Amino acid sequence: MSLVLDPAAQDLLFREARTANTFTDEPVTEEQVQAIYDLVKFGPTAFNQTPLRITLVRSAEARERLVRHMAEGNQAKTASAPLVAILSADNEFHEELPTLFPAFPQAKDLFFAERPAREGSATLNAALQAAYFIVGIRAAGLAAGPMTGFDAEGIRKEFLDDDHTPLVVVNIGKPGEGASYPRSPRLSYEQVVTTV
Amino acid sequence: MSLVLDPAAQDLLFREARTANTFTDEPVTEEQVQAIYDLVKFGPTAFNQTPLRITLVRSAEARERLVRHMAEGNQAKTASAPLVAILSADNEFHEELPTLFPAFPQAKDLFFAERPAREGSATLNAALQAAYFIVGIRAAGLAAGPMTGFDAEGIRKEFLDDDHTPLVVVNIGKPGEGASYPRSPRLSYEQVVTTV
Repeated sequence: MSLVLDPAAQDLLFREARTANTFTDEPVTEEQVQAIYDLVKFGPTAFNQTPLRITLVRSAEARERLVRHMAEGNQAKTASAPLVAILSADNEFHEELPTLFPAFPQAKDLFFAERPAREGSATLNAALQAAYFIVGIRAAGLAAGPMTGFDAEGIRKEFLDDDHTPLVVVNIGKPGEGASYPRSPRLSYEQVVTTV
Repeated sequence: MSLVLDPAAQDLLFREARTANTFTDEPVTEEQVQAIYDLVKFGPTAFNQTPLRITLVRSAEARERLVRHMAEGNQAKTASAPLVAILSADNEFHEELPTLFPAFPQAKDLFFAERPAREGSATLNAALQAAYFIVGIRAAGLAAGPMTGFDAEGIRKEFLDDDHTPLVVVNIGKPGEGASYPRSPRLSYEQVVTTV
């Protein structure tokens, strides 16, 4: 009773949503990805820096190049998912900051002049946005299969450039036969939360 | 029309939700935080590692100690928010892995024997969970004020230990007078998404 979010929405986004490892053939359309982005782009980031960049791997040729860089256990599902997205952090996000955070355009030079500071901030904030994106996939009635088992340097060279850091690769589609493993246990509130 | 999530839920979690910089005096109860955790604990992480740890700063004495480590622009709101949570990554999450990911208990030693690998994974996955937590705060009808402007080493020493990395500090409560700045622009779909 402490949540105001509709119980059906709680189920759709968290309680019944599961990571999928198999998918049906039903395509994921451009309209669906646009609708997901147009929802989750509002998720908060520091200075509204929004460093997440999304590479949709749609062509068979690109999919084959991607699969080669995935960990062995991730290859079959990445090859067969209706859509795969490479989620990366743009380490040069600060170039857009004066537009993205007009209230304090000095942030670009004050906080992000040095590349290491930018990389740390881009990774953290793009990870927040990756989570919003996963929630958005579920909001579209689709299943996400997020993966971190891949050769990041290989994917960077193959699809991105030195200014981008791949963080998560996500399979997207309708769950297929035996899509999910049994739900693993979660830590209790007492194991996670401390009060001071 | 591409989203199946109820429009009211879209508004609550993303479209109308805003980062709050002022709050009313209404307390945030233990029950609310438990309800938030019990929802967002289901958000996916790699190997179900769930490295997020939450420190609720409730006592006046602890709040004072925290405020000292916040960036100047974050001090007043951190001092006055009904509740403040320090979100950190547990770099020793691997100790729980055999319980958390019973399908593959070898993961603990195969992938996470070395501390640098654990730290990278803990930071990324705790950041995903921090975003789920922000979404959960909104699901409880509360406003979040996430901040990364603080002395991380200071907070670590003051409230945590060498095994924990503070990532985000979040003010939580009902939004007060003039709680939000005007919404800043977002990047267009074309600026963020590339198809290959």
